[in-house]
Amino acid sequence: MIKVGIVGGTGYTGVELLRLLVMHPEVDLQVITSRSEAGTLVSDTYPNLRGHLDLPFTEPDVDKLAECDLVFFATPNGVAMKQVPELLSKGVRVIDLAADFRIKDVAVWENWYGQTHACSELLNSAVYGLPEINRSAIKDCQLLANPGCYPTAVQLGFLPLLENNLVEPAHLIADAKSGISGAGRGASVSSLFSETSGSFKAYGASGHRHLPEIKQGLNAMQSESVGLTFVPHLLPMIRGIEATLYARLTPAAQSDVKLEDVQALFEKRFKDEPFVDVMPLGSHPETRSVKGSNMCRIALHQQEGSDTIIVLSVIDNLVKGAAGQAVHNMNIMFGLGETTGIEQVALMP
Amino acid sequence: MIKVGIVGGTGYTGVELLRLLVMHPEVDLQVITSRSEAGTLVSDTYPNLRGHLDLPFTEPDVDKLAECDLVFFATPNGVAMKQVPELLSKGVRVIDLAADFRIKDVAVWENWYGQTHACSELLNSAVYGLPEINRSAIKDCQLLANPGCYPTAVQLGFLPLLENNLVEPAHLIADAKSGISGAGRGASVSSLFSETSGSFKAYGASGHRHLPEIKQGLNAMQSESVGLTFVPHLLPMIRGIEATLYARLTPAAQSDVKLEDVQALFEKRFKDEPFVDVMPLGSHPETRSVKGSNMCRIALHQQEGSDTIIVLSVIDNLVKGAAGQAVHNMNIMFGLGETTGIEQVALMP
Amino acid sequence: MIKVGIVGGTGYTGVELLRLLVMHPEVDLQVITSRSEAGTLVSDTYPNLRGHLDLPFTEPDVDKLAECDLVFFATPNGVAMKQVPELLSKGVRVIDLAADFRIKDVAVWENWYGQTHACSELLNSAVYGLPEINRSAIKDCQLLANPGCYPTAVQLGFLPLLENNLVEPAHLIADAKSGISGAGRGASVSSLFSETSGSFKAYGASGHRHLPEIKQGLNAMQSESVGLTFVPHLLPMIRGIEATLYARLTPAAQSDVKLEDVQALFEKRFKDEPFVDVMPLGSHPETRSVKGSNMCRIALHQQEGSDTIIVLSVIDNLVKGAAGQAVHNMNIMFGLGETTGIEQVALMP
Amino acid sequence: MIKVGIVGGTGYTGVELLRLLVMHPEVDLQVITSRSEAGTLVSDTYPNLRGHLDLPFTEPDVDKLAECDLVFFATPNGVAMKQVPELLSKGVRVIDLAADFRIKDVAVWENWYGQTHACSELLNSAVYGLPEINRSAIKDCQLLANPGCYPTAVQLGFLPLLENNLVEPAHLIADAKSGISGAGRGASVSSLFSETSGSFKAYGASGHRHLPEIKQGLNAMQSESVGLTFVPHLLPMIRGIEATLYARLTPAAQSDVKLEDVQALFEKRFKDEPFVDVMPLGSHPETRSVKGSNMCRIALHQQEGSDTIIVLSVIDNLVKGAAGQAVHNMNIMFGLGETTGIEQVALMP
Repeated sequence: MIKVGIVGGTGYTGVELLRLLVMHPEVDLQVITSRSEAGTLVSDTYPNLRGHLDLPFTEPDVDKLAECDLVFFATPNGVAMKQVPELLSKGVRVIDLAADFRIKDVAVWENWYGQTHACSELLNSAVYGLPEINRSAIKDCQLLANPGCYPTAVQLGFLPLLENNLVEPAHLIADAKSGISGAGRGASVSSLFSETSGSFKAYGASGHRHLPEIKQGLNAMQSESVGLTFVPHLLPMIRGIEATLYARLTPAAQSDVKLEDVQALFEKRFKDEPFVDVMPLGSHPETRSVKGSNMCRIALHQQEGSDTIIVLSVIDNLVKGAAGQAVHNMNIMFGLGETTGIEQVALMP
Repeated sequence: MIKVGIVGGTGYTGVELLRLLVMHPEVDLQVITSRSEAGTLVSDTYPNLRGHLDLPFTEPDVDKLAECDLVFFATPNGVAMKQVPELLSKGVRVIDLAADFRIKDVAVWENWYGQTHACSELLNSAVYGLPEINRSAIKDCQLLANPGCYPTAVQLGFLPLLENNLVEPAHLIADAKSGISGAGRGASVSSLFSETSGSFKAYGASGHRHLPEIKQGLNAMQSESVGLTFVPHLLPMIRGIEATLYARLTPAAQSDVKLEDVQALFEKRFKDEPFVDVMPLGSHPETRSVKGSNMCRIALHQQEGSDTIIVLSVIDNLVKGAAGQAVHNMNIMFGLGETTGIEQVALMP
Repeated sequence: MIKVGIVGGTGYTGVELLRLLVMHPEVDLQVITSRSEAGTLVSDTYPNLRGHLDLPFTEPDVDKLAECDLVFFATPNGVAMKQVPELLSKGVRVIDLAADFRIKDVAVWENWYGQTHACSELLNSAVYGLPEINRSAIKDCQLLANPGCYPTAVQLGFLPLLENNLVEPAHLIADAKSGISGAGRGASVSSLFSETSGSFKAYGASGHRHLPEIKQGLNAMQSESVGLTFVPHLLPMIRGIEATLYARLTPAAQSDVKLEDVQALFEKRFKDEPFVDVMPLGSHPETRSVKGSNMCRIALHQQEGSDTIIVLSVIDNLVKGAAGQAVHNMNIMFGLGETTGIEQVALMP
Repeated sequence: MIKVGIVGGTGYTGVELLRLLVMHPEVDLQVITSRSEAGTLVSDTYPNLRGHLDLPFTEPDVDKLAECDLVFFATPNGVAMKQVPELLSKGVRVIDLAADFRIKDVAVWENWYGQTHACSELLNSAVYGLPEINRSAIKDCQLLANPGCYPTAVQLGFLPLLENNLVEPAHLIADAKSGISGAGRGASVSSLFSETSGSFKAYGASGHRHLPEIKQGLNAMQSESVGLTFVPHLLPMIRGIEATLYARLTPAAQSDVKLEDVQALFEKRFKDEPFVDVMPLGSHPETRSVKGSNMCRIALHQQEGSDTIIVLSVIDNLVKGAAGQAVHNMNIMFGLGETTGIEQVALMP
């Protein structure tokens, strides 16, 4: 049994992590911290956990956390970086679900996140936890940066195209849409039901924090510097991300490569991946087909006479886009079966 | 392993049954029939099952079904009664998720369901599968009538009040609200998104088929004939039932019994029930706290100066109100641990 | 043209009032105050008003408001009572959309609203603005208390039953459901999309502020003291209230009165009311049939063998339950055609 | 007063047309036909019209329609083309809200709509009713083809860019999202609440009927043949379209033109258009800001270091995307004030 602690368990990634971990056969939950809710039962905040979890939220306490084999940070950006060094020094392994360790270039990070990084010396050793790309590095890492939600959906969708140099990296477009849980559980007017239900909009269209994270990943897939336009949108629903990706075939590929060939490449690339499902050509993956599950479903399209490949990619932002991927990473780090505890079938309807 | 067949797997109770059964450690799914979809993969209709289930829908075939230990009917009302007798005669056990065997009085059934019953001789031996009331009869039954969704939420809420003769049975009121999945997956204008989203209404306010089923259950809880007013409503959401129940304390109880006493009675009655959660006094159970789970959560209220007890009862209509309760009944019938395969934590948010 | 000011225009009743008033042919909007948004254009907060309204929010300023013929208060409870006396003394007429002047008994008000009333001497002269009951008093009043949303739907539904002594006033039940806009535009976790979408719950089941307001109204309809159980619920939608009302016929009425007679009484009572629509017997009014409109739709039901009359009543909580009724009252107070500016057809679908 | 008839009044564009026309001061509704609902009151199907419209649906009858000055067709594709020639020959003017007369090239039309055109000789004289482009032709036309919903949002967004040759026409991308009312009121599983709520997906990603209509419009804006990738998506909401448009600046424009210049061009182009609102730079228009209104709101963005212009364009698909634009066209055709009867403020929240 892995002794696990969670720092910051009151947000949506926190409760999702709890939903998965209370059913995980190899996890022994030791401590869940929350300054704001310390002393109250976790199941008072999240009644879905009544009967599954008897722990209270407690004040953060390094000594208590240091007794764990693994600590998850489900905290706002900028919190983990202040506590992680001490935990690492005590031999605890850490998975950070926030953005503190995702970006290698500290100047880029500080620019987009508007704060000074507290332990930039750790950035290089932190492993970016996208298992489909980094599996072997994940296995032995002590500090894991769990990918962002949009970056997960977008990188997996572009991956086989870029790895195989099929498309022009200079003009990629990712039109992405997310459910509102991505905005977190903080009280804010803009996330009220009456402000968002029955409506849709783009946001961050001039620039969003996930842009540099995605670019870093896409750059690593091939040799050129990518040009990416990324526009996120807010969907009137709780869970789910859909990314519609547009990439132009290279002149060479335009004459040689059929959509069926691209499909074959995708199927081959993800054949052994337990959490990527390449659907048949012409499919339109629905976000509900992954609701509550750790799956990413992908489908390909091309319009008549066009040199643009369209990739449709869906995930549950709280599972494959956050807590589920974190548990997947934990499974890899601790040598468990990769799918242990995260094989749930999506809730549909 | 229990060999299981499903007749009518294309509806919402069907797919929910599949979601639970593909993860059930003691179940071997043998056959899933659907006339309309025969020949296509189940996972083509329900992509959430991709990777979990490889079976196709097949034409109904009694011989194939007769090889099963247990057959679930997830068919429209009136279908099971035509096929069940033959299966029973071949030694197969049957759980009907529709209404064919719920009502003992065939005249009442035929009046409300508008058809002649095809095997009324079975009505007496069929066991009404509300485990909290009928556990011992369920264990040995061959034919089980799985309760309706509203009847489950309403009966569990009234049960301790009536068993203990605390309230006047002549003037019970059940104001119940259900998500739209209760209307099924048939194509109909009234269940379209654009007809139901952002709106709310009562329906069947002059009389609904679940009324006689509920009355039959409430009558069995005590000696008098109950008077029940039951009004169902349609909620703009997929899953979930909330029933707000109003019952007047008897004159004796008005002077003797405090709300705390009633609370204690509820807690005692359901103490050993794995799927009924009596929440602390003053709680307001949310349907989302049971979304995707087999739990029924109940809370009690009384307004100042009032002799009326208010019971709030929530379930997921597709789980505790249908497929989950059916699996619970299966577990009891086959001597498995009662919670096997149905311990999922509700999806929240 | 009536010179109109609005105090507190940033909330949902405020913007709804603006939606109606910018199209009202007899209104000249002079000033809209908001401490928090002073200096910004109203249409920056509410882009639906772009092109319809050029005013900025301004700091509250009594002298500016005193130049108006009429001032609406769309403020939180407890704000209007501090400013109204001065405005009245300067000859301005006032419509308060909050609760400050709705309850005649100051002790009851202070108990439910948890504060000391700042001008209880005005409570007697304030007119409760339910036009269907108080039309003549409204005409000449200087201070109008606009009814609450639940109280509007519930009182109109019970009105003909109680006025005609058809039902037992001691055991009335109102099971009411409201869209989330009723909770206002304040930032709070409990009103977030991710906390409320796809879910339903009762709230305030042990006692809600609208209970004394409703009781005061029902008591005035007949001679006995009413006993009312009122349970509000939260619907996963923005606008709309549905109240399902249960009232037992008196012994005399049980033998004499048929449902058709009750229907006739309702039709007669509301025949000349422009904003109450008694639907045909057996109808199930949907909240969407009044979305954005000032209409209240009512329908009657009775279940076989039952002595309970069921009344279904729907309104848009922001229109007939707030801003629309306020404009209706303004029209009456200023001698305009009653329906001027509030004849909008509901948005459906 | 204009004598108006409507053929096919039961669908969503039909009822939306009725909502607008019953309040229109210059319209006298004479006849509303529907084969399926003939003989029933329109307000029985659409209770929001109770009190506003007393007409029944009637069987289609050319003589009756021929007495009108104007007939709207709110019918499925392929219906109008069979009835329009006779009406035109009797001097009636016609606005078709379906696709029968939108595409000039009959081969293209027949290919995408899968049927033989019944009166292709009329295609040339039919006027495409996008007032912002075709105002003068609309004025005198006898047969008007009302634009599709997606084509309205997309064409208005690209218009100033293409007219001014600022972007490369060969690589345009339109990622568009629509509420479910766009799928119409037919009973179909795919439009059920339980199939669409809380989910999102692309559809028609390999090719959609609105693609040739949009291309025809964009081609007319400049001299080159456009290359357009158009992917529609289904939003879990009733009303609203958002189109996110991506266009690469020409090499010349990349060095010369700043985003502020583009903004100025958009503002100039639409300055006198009553139904196009160019929002300030950096805005993110929400679909709810146009819900129930005839407005199209547009905003521009450009990401750092990128040569791609992003245009965000929102409309209500049933108003500016259908019925409202039809009324606008009617106003122009009959010499009325352009905004008469369609000045409604959007319903927000």
